[in-house]
Amino acid sequence: MRCLVPVAADSPKSRLAGVLSPSERNAFARAMVIDVLLALSAVDCQPTILSTACIDNDRITSRARVEVDDRPLTPAINARLADGEPTLVVMADLPLIEPQDIQRLIDSNTDVTIAPGLGGGTNALAIREPSFRVDYHGVSFRDHCRAADEVGATVNTIDSRRLATDIDEPADLAEVLIHSNGAAAEWLTAAGFELETTGGRVGVSRQ
Amino acid sequence: MRCLVPVAADSPKSRLAGVLSPSERNAFARAMVIDVLLALSAVDCQPTILSTACIDNDRITSRARVEVDDRPLTPAINARLADGEPTLVVMADLPLIEPQDIQRLIDSNTDVTIAPGLGGGTNALAIREPSFRVDYHGVSFRDHCRAADEVGATVNTIDSRRLATDIDEPADLAEVLIHSNGAAAEWLTAAGFELETTGGRVGVSRQ
Repeated sequence: MRCLVPVAADSPKSRLAGVLSPSERNAFARAMVIDVLLALSAVDCQPTILSTACIDNDRITSRARVEVDDRPLTPAINARLADGEPTLVVMADLPLIEPQDIQRLIDSNTDVTIAPGLGGGTNALAIREPSFRVDYHGVSFRDHCRAADEVGATVNTIDSRRLATDIDEPADLAEVLIHSNGAAAEWLTAAGFELETTGGRVGVSRQ
Repeated sequence: MRCLVPVAADSPKSRLAGVLSPSERNAFARAMVIDVLLALSAVDCQPTILSTACIDNDRITSRARVEVDDRPLTPAINARLADGEPTLVVMADLPLIEPQDIQRLIDSNTDVTIAPGLGGGTNALAIREPSFRVDYHGVSFRDHCRAADEVGATVNTIDSRRLATDIDEPADLAEVLIHSNGAAAEWLTAAGFELETTGGRVGVSRQ
């Protein structure tokens, strides 16, 4: 099935501003995209990156076709869904993702398959119902369940920690260092981040 | 297999102090225990609660045997593991847990099966290797992988968002309201909590 990976090319990951400079956020976001593309290529999925601007990074452009679309996420995806083709949408900030997670999405035979993110978001969608449309605003997991229901589509929710872990906030960086050794984890380590045990959940510190 | 559910009966959930009073934290923690016990009973698992103090709550004591053990978590569990009996350890603060999640733990045939929590913790363990011992301090997920390796045990990690979502911090309450309609979700709703969309991840507010 067609696979779309939306990427916000300008000022990505603003909630990491407290720990990363703008150019670092950009580099870290690119590393996460590479992790997602590597997982996709391992299951022979040829993704198209929907980017808000041109991407000048060989490690990305060698692995995916890039389509520039400067519309917000929701209309950019829905414009593609209009042709009714079965579509997988995978967020670009899922560095824990593994090939078998994508396989679960591809193998699911419901009309709409949702992998929720932490905090009510939608991190991946496999869409086989031609009339389903996305809406990434607000508690999008709930909205997507409701939208599927409204068009009479069967829905399956994928219970995956790896797919749920989108990296948005400083505390999320710990998940990358704990559970991954991919490009994003490598980037964080090279930038001086390490795990810090504080008594509650493990966080990160930077040297 | 034997199933242990450790419960901190005194002053539970201290990191929720900003949003819940001591007696509310106590009641909310009890509601989460009930959600865990209901999931266990649905797969015919007869749990023993290891509590640091007596529990006077019919909805709990009717569903599980309670053993009072005032030692910290790690020695209390390891004292039971000493007899070599296969043991499932499930944390009491996993209100999203569903029967099939417990079944996955029971069905896993590796010597040690780990369901990591957010922030490097260990939310559930299925232990079939008699010489394996737990250590819940620090990045316990990593420590448990290492400990299994040291005794030559095979290890499997369960990739489950529901098992990963332990409820420790105010932001976690949103996960309960989004994904559950069990006792903990009911308690939060009755206490006036509702979802609040702030632009990033969904949080909660209280009326």
